[in-house]
Amino acid sequence: MNRIDHIGIAVKDLKSASEIYTRLLGKPFYKTERVAAEDVETAFFACGENKVELLESTSENSAISRFIEKRGEGIHHLAFEVDDIRAEIARLKGEGFDFIAEEPQPGADNKLICFLHPRKTAGVLIELCQEMSHL
Amino acid sequence: MNRIDHIGIAVKDLKSASEIYTRLLGKPFYKTERVAAEDVETAFFACGENKVELLESTSENSAISRFIEKRGEGIHHLAFEVDDIRAEIARLKGEGFDFIAEEPQPGADNKLICFLHPRKTAGVLIELCQEMSHL
Repeated sequence: MNRIDHIGIAVKDLKSASEIYTRLLGKPFYKTERVAAEDVETAFFACGENKVELLESTSENSAISRFIEKRGEGIHHLAFEVDDIRAEIARLKGEGFDFIAEEPQPGADNKLICFLHPRKTAGVLIELCQEMSHL
Repeated sequence: MNRIDHIGIAVKDLKSASEIYTRLLGKPFYKTERVAAEDVETAFFACGENKVELLESTSENSAISRFIEKRGEGIHHLAFEVDDIRAEIARLKGEGFDFIAEEPQPGADNKLICFLHPRKTAGVLIELCQEMSHL
């Protein structure tokens, strides 16, 4: 767990939310990206050494759709950068944490990602992410 | 909005949540602090240029108690460091954002703080914080 890479925010409408965060942060997003495997369209804002990732669902049955239906818009996950995602998964399993899926998947931003189950992390959905170029 | 200062996580029990985040982050919190004005006991973990702040309520009627009652444990707020909190409040009001209270108050970690209303920020409770020593 090197540092926080990004904060993921579930939004209903990426265009209007991007306008809001542009006014909030005082600068526009630096990229958008569609992640077909997760049924999301994303926009990334730079903020110090972190990023703010806005996520709009592109499907009614996606994790983001279900999150918004249950809790409304808001912070969806907190992502930590790791150097070796498989080693970190092994370490955290040894510490008693559970994973939603233990096999890392390609995510947005050229990363391999996986999620810890929030039942063991005080309700926080935590993502581990590793730059693909570090593979 | 210089950078993200910390992520605030509402927890039911500070002791057990601190143990969880010590195992997760691989290092213990570096301080605890009671903030009487907000009815919370906090623990801070360093993580890159950010901090993770765990918050346990010390009163049944605090904002943290009400948050947990409504949504369960989880991420409560996202705090951005600013150089001049009053100038940033004025800028953001000019951009159409609302504040829960417009007069900054002393918060944890030797900061002056105030909160934007989540109805204009895609459901995210956003804190502005300024080091007291920068006053």
